[in-house]
Amino acid sequence: MEWILTENGYDSSLAATHGNKYLIGNGYLGIRGALEEYEKDQLVAINLAGIYDQVGDQFREPVNAPNALYTFCEVAGERIGLPNSEMVSHQITLDFSHGLFSRKTSYPTKKGEVTVESERFCCMEQPHMICMKYSIHVSEAMEVTLVSGIDADVWDINGPHLNKVKFASSSKEENTFELSVHAVTTEKKVGLHVQEISSLRILEDIIPDCLEQRKKQQYNHEVVKSEQKVLNRFTISLPANGMVCLYKYIGIYTEKDSTSYEKDNKEQLNHALLQGYGTLKNEHLEWWRKCWEKDMVVIEGDEAAMQALNYSLYHLITIAPRHSKSMSIPARGLSGQTYKGAVFWDTEMFLLPFYLYTDPKVARSLVKYRIDTLEGARKKAKEYGYLGAFYAWESQEGGHEACSDYNVTDVFTGRPMRTFFRDKQIHISAAVVYGLMTYVHTTRDYSVLEEGGVEVVLECAQFYYSMLLQKVPFGQYELHDVVGPDEYHERVNNNFYTNRMAKYTFDMAVELIYSAPKLSSDTQNKIAKQYGLSALLTKFEEASKRIFLKVPDKYTKLIEQFDGYYKLKDTSLEEVRSKIIHPKEYWGGAYGVAADTKIIKQADVVTALTLFRDEYEQEVLQKNWDYYEPRTEHGSSLSACMYALLACYCGNPDQAYPFFLKSAMADLKGGGKEWAGLLYIGGTHPAAAGGAYMTAVYGFAGLSIKEGSIAVKPCLPSSITKLSFSVQIGGKKYRITVTKEEAVAVLI
Amino acid sequence: MEWILTENGYDSSLAATHGNKYLIGNGYLGIRGALEEYEKDQLVAINLAGIYDQVGDQFREPVNAPNALYTFCEVAGERIGLPNSEMVSHQITLDFSHGLFSRKTSYPTKKGEVTVESERFCCMEQPHMICMKYSIHVSEAMEVTLVSGIDADVWDINGPHLNKVKFASSSKEENTFELSVHAVTTEKKVGLHVQEISSLRILEDIIPDCLEQRKKQQYNHEVVKSEQKVLNRFTISLPANGMVCLYKYIGIYTEKDSTSYEKDNKEQLNHALLQGYGTLKNEHLEWWRKCWEKDMVVIEGDEAAMQALNYSLYHLITIAPRHSKSMSIPARGLSGQTYKGAVFWDTEMFLLPFYLYTDPKVARSLVKYRIDTLEGARKKAKEYGYLGAFYAWESQEGGHEACSDYNVTDVFTGRPMRTFFRDKQIHISAAVVYGLMTYVHTTRDYSVLEEGGVEVVLECAQFYYSMLLQKVPFGQYELHDVVGPDEYHERVNNNFYTNRMAKYTFDMAVELIYSAPKLSSDTQNKIAKQYGLSALLTKFEEASKRIFLKVPDKYTKLIEQFDGYYKLKDTSLEEVRSKIIHPKEYWGGAYGVAADTKIIKQADVVTALTLFRDEYEQEVLQKNWDYYEPRTEHGSSLSACMYALLACYCGNPDQAYPFFLKSAMADLKGGGKEWAGLLYIGGTHPAAAGGAYMTAVYGFAGLSIKEGSIAVKPCLPSSITKLSFSVQIGGKKYRITVTKEEAVAVLI
Repeated sequence: MEWILTENGYDSSLAATHGNKYLIGNGYLGIRGALEEYEKDQLVAINLAGIYDQVGDQFREPVNAPNALYTFCEVAGERIGLPNSEMVSHQITLDFSHGLFSRKTSYPTKKGEVTVESERFCCMEQPHMICMKYSIHVSEAMEVTLVSGIDADVWDINGPHLNKVKFASSSKEENTFELSVHAVTTEKKVGLHVQEISSLRILEDIIPDCLEQRKKQQYNHEVVKSEQKVLNRFTISLPANGMVCLYKYIGIYTEKDSTSYEKDNKEQLNHALLQGYGTLKNEHLEWWRKCWEKDMVVIEGDEAAMQALNYSLYHLITIAPRHSKSMSIPARGLSGQTYKGAVFWDTEMFLLPFYLYTDPKVARSLVKYRIDTLEGARKKAKEYGYLGAFYAWESQEGGHEACSDYNVTDVFTGRPMRTFFRDKQIHISAAVVYGLMTYVHTTRDYSVLEEGGVEVVLECAQFYYSMLLQKVPFGQYELHDVVGPDEYHERVNNNFYTNRMAKYTFDMAVELIYSAPKLSSDTQNKIAKQYGLSALLTKFEEASKRIFLKVPDKYTKLIEQFDGYYKLKDTSLEEVRSKIIHPKEYWGGAYGVAADTKIIKQADVVTALTLFRDEYEQEVLQKNWDYYEPRTEHGSSLSACMYALLACYCGNPDQAYPFFLKSAMADLKGGGKEWAGLLYIGGTHPAAAGGAYMTAVYGFAGLSIKEGSIAVKPCLPSSITKLSFSVQIGGKKYRITVTKEEAVAVLI
Repeated sequence: MEWILTENGYDSSLAATHGNKYLIGNGYLGIRGALEEYEKDQLVAINLAGIYDQVGDQFREPVNAPNALYTFCEVAGERIGLPNSEMVSHQITLDFSHGLFSRKTSYPTKKGEVTVESERFCCMEQPHMICMKYSIHVSEAMEVTLVSGIDADVWDINGPHLNKVKFASSSKEENTFELSVHAVTTEKKVGLHVQEISSLRILEDIIPDCLEQRKKQQYNHEVVKSEQKVLNRFTISLPANGMVCLYKYIGIYTEKDSTSYEKDNKEQLNHALLQGYGTLKNEHLEWWRKCWEKDMVVIEGDEAAMQALNYSLYHLITIAPRHSKSMSIPARGLSGQTYKGAVFWDTEMFLLPFYLYTDPKVARSLVKYRIDTLEGARKKAKEYGYLGAFYAWESQEGGHEACSDYNVTDVFTGRPMRTFFRDKQIHISAAVVYGLMTYVHTTRDYSVLEEGGVEVVLECAQFYYSMLLQKVPFGQYELHDVVGPDEYHERVNNNFYTNRMAKYTFDMAVELIYSAPKLSSDTQNKIAKQYGLSALLTKFEEASKRIFLKVPDKYTKLIEQFDGYYKLKDTSLEEVRSKIIHPKEYWGGAYGVAADTKIIKQADVVTALTLFRDEYEQEVLQKNWDYYEPRTEHGSSLSACMYALLACYCGNPDQAYPFFLKSAMADLKGGGKEWAGLLYIGGTHPAAAGGAYMTAVYGFAGLSIKEGSIAVKPCLPSSITKLSFSVQIGGKKYRITVTKEEAVAVLI
């Protein structure tokens, strides 16, 4: 099986979009689909997972490594490359079945045609390593200069993050050259080491299948260092149809990875050099082959859907933090610094299922990240005068809240706008509990509870308990002044989703307190010492019982999104759009065009109904779908999949299908909101990818897990005749195959 | 005693300001200080009290009557008048000791100099009547045309309000002419009748003290009717130094005043004609003489302060609804349609004391208005899902809420901005209770309680009770999501002023329930039937005890304005001002320049401390004054007097003095915010006038009433050596005189 994404021709305005669409990565790092000759203006990035830096009082964001892929050529003293040079043909390709990026570009020069080809991959089993092959072919005899090295002048949104940049170079052996750069981050002075070993080969005349026919390599070599770059310059006289080829082995390590990180980096490169490009590539291809064998979702009858869905899975696989036992995934994956590289509720509510069923160790790492950042969540709760744990809306290392009170710039005044994502979007803590408990219920790996999971649940329940308000004349408990998933309506009371998730949190806390005797005596003692469990139990049981949950209207079956939603102006998306004055103005906020209308940003009531569908009659699910969908902008990539899922739960897979496809194609199609003024906000959409997977598995196949046993209830859209995939549940692996007639789950 | 306000010269840009500054009125109507030849562009208005009209979905606002003062002259076929004609001298005058407006303007014409003089007053004892004298004097022989009649094309902010306009004219007897206009309002079809009788005299040569030396009047007369105007045109050939003089008796009645309103109007005018201008004027002057004898505040040592304060009282007297048993006063008095002619908390918290002490019947009318609009307040509470009575923030007839959800226009986008005056400024209901109970406690007139006052208090307490929130883990009751007096900070929790006023309301309800046995058995039966009094008593006592009141910090003695105020940016007024981009932008709202700073619009904590000063040590009062004053914009005319009063209560009358003067001079000085974009928002400032009175009486004289007995504790600023005034308390009248050494209260 081979899936190739390719584009011919060149349009410089697509550079940013291609950066995301042609991304490769291995969880430790992500490499934007940028050409080798690109510099920071074309948004080149080798984005590192889990390492953040803050400069001054700008936003803290993840660090982009110095770019050791940086390569270009010169002919007759003139630099040749995109976007500046004229070209006759250009093609970029992502073989996403194997995580291989390649490009081929031909340029007309005064001396003849020059063709540049490259190929790169991030080693899946060696997360610190990148391999690249770069060649120049000439149609006529000419002198070419191949320039390649490390560009430390990297693209940053809120940088520069690299300081004390030191370059080194050495010539290792014949035709083999070493360059390295060492730098430290601004805020925490974390050391970062990037090294490359490059090996040069010159082919005087290309004879197919006989590449070994070469003579002694003749070229001139020099090392050029500038303030921000260290480069090898190779000048070679090539005959007509001659070619020069550079193999680069690139290693990236930081002080966070190892105390002997420089040494480790050098060692892995020396080893790589011994193995050679071909061996490394074969290992890489083999990794992917095995991965797909296990994780591919096979769709029959709808090739486009299959390709789009597996392209989504490709992205999820490339950003999985397999190298860490406690790390989560940023909302824009490893595609750059957008959204500060921070972890959102996306992880728990949209990404987790894929990892849970295909690579539970990754799921555990995601969950463990939240356990390990409980202290940050406690601190945040305290900051606002609450008890327990209030997780960061935009979580960085240690649970640090990266979200500021001013997250949007008013396009009319240029002033920062006070937003309430940080302080009012309290449903984040429930999402953390949801992720943790879904992990526990699915894997039956209770060790995460012993390792701090119990505290996470209890502290999150404490948090909601401390926010509960009781209207004095009435008995019910309420949650006021929140922002639900629909961010266009700020500071609302009794958001249905939020209240339901808070109730869920109380229920999970109660479940854990009841099942505490099953935990180790150490854990039992620890939590008994820390909490008055029987008092907590009484409180949380009472809270779960009394928290106000809007019920479907007797006649319309509708559930109001929050207190007063029905009083808002009932209008159409088109009408709201027609009120826009400035193309980049924010629809939400106090005075946004959507704020006083029923138009919502994304699935809200529908998300709650999707999660808790078993508590409602199908008519309630359908009526709310019908009501809210036309009122939803789907301004978030988290929206479509919830509508897709709920449509499946209503038995309407064909209604679900376009929403499924929208999720699955989020990155394939590209576009969307990429720029906010001068700020780049584009990137990949892992949550949409995860949502597409959820739709296939939960929706079309109808997979559900109840009390440890799995059930499958097919609900295939017209175009799909068969759907099959593997899942790991409770330590067992199943191959599930559904057709319109039958559903089979085979233990494998 | 005579106080004359006069200005020489003409500046057309001051037309709007003069409209307010030179206002005359009698409580039934207010006449802006506009020239007779002015039309709607110069904001002419005869503003009627208590009659409102709405056109389409524009704002409902009070009705301006057809302008029967409309008069101008023509010389040689050319209209002469301001602002268009050249003039050689111009003077306007307000004798505010007698409620007399006059003007004198000389114009150079081709034929010689023409001088126009006029004088007008609203009869204080005949509220439906206005008298005017208008004369033209010529330096050389010439033919002049005097044009005078009724201009129904009146200035409206959200009009036109007059429909089915019908004109009538007749010649009554020699030299006497009648014109009338009948119209109905748009919304409620209320009939409105304006009539004038004018009497013409020609003086061929003016011999002082011998005005009777006249011969048969020779002139040409015709009546000209257009769609919007009915006019008498008198054309007269005057000799050099000749003069023509028109006396106008103008009557205004509406269907709300009487079922036979047209007949009544005609009868009063016929009677007026018999009495003659001189007699009516003398009656008017006498009324004012007696009024000042009773109500003047005499200040020795500071003439400017005395004049400013009594000018303030002049305004309060001219807008007092003496003609009605149940009517209140709009926030901009009778100076126009600004703020929709609506009644705000200004009445109870700032205006009431003056009427209470000088004319308790007017005070009773103000209080009765709230009792009679309880139904509107009940309706509003219900609309928001609350119990009891939520009074209108901008109250029109029947308690109709005139305040919309969109009260401000965003100057950057031109869009209406969602404001929270209507739904969150809940302290209005407590203000109503405060006014009612202050009236009862001061006058000991319990009949208002029998007439519905008890219900007002109980319903307002019910309202706050139904809003109370209890944080589930804690015991206290809170009020969330409100706007306090400082409107620049919206949607705050536990605003100190609001919580304290709610507690006051509970306390008053408790007081009334305990003292219910003193009420008539009818009232007792009625309220017993309507309410479960003993259950209410328990609830309100509990609420008063448990409502959260911020206490002064142990060290700083400061009281936080609301939850989280201390976390706001501590900045200066200058810095906030420097952020202004558009001169008319709103400082409040979600993103206003003040919104995330500690800068407040007006006295808030300071208002609460002023009202409840006895509950705090003087150090608390002073420390809070010192803290909040530099952080206050005083963007409302209600602010300065609260700072003045609290400074007095801290024993610092000299610190109070500039704030007192600022209040007293609010209309005298003019200026302030008069325009919001194209919308006129200027007008008189009765609350500032009332606040100046309060400062003099409560602050400088230190008057207080406790359990029926009065106490005086002088606190005079340096410039004032003696202060004296009369007050009616508990049905008795006292003359109070204070000097720096002593205080005397004499029963008179």
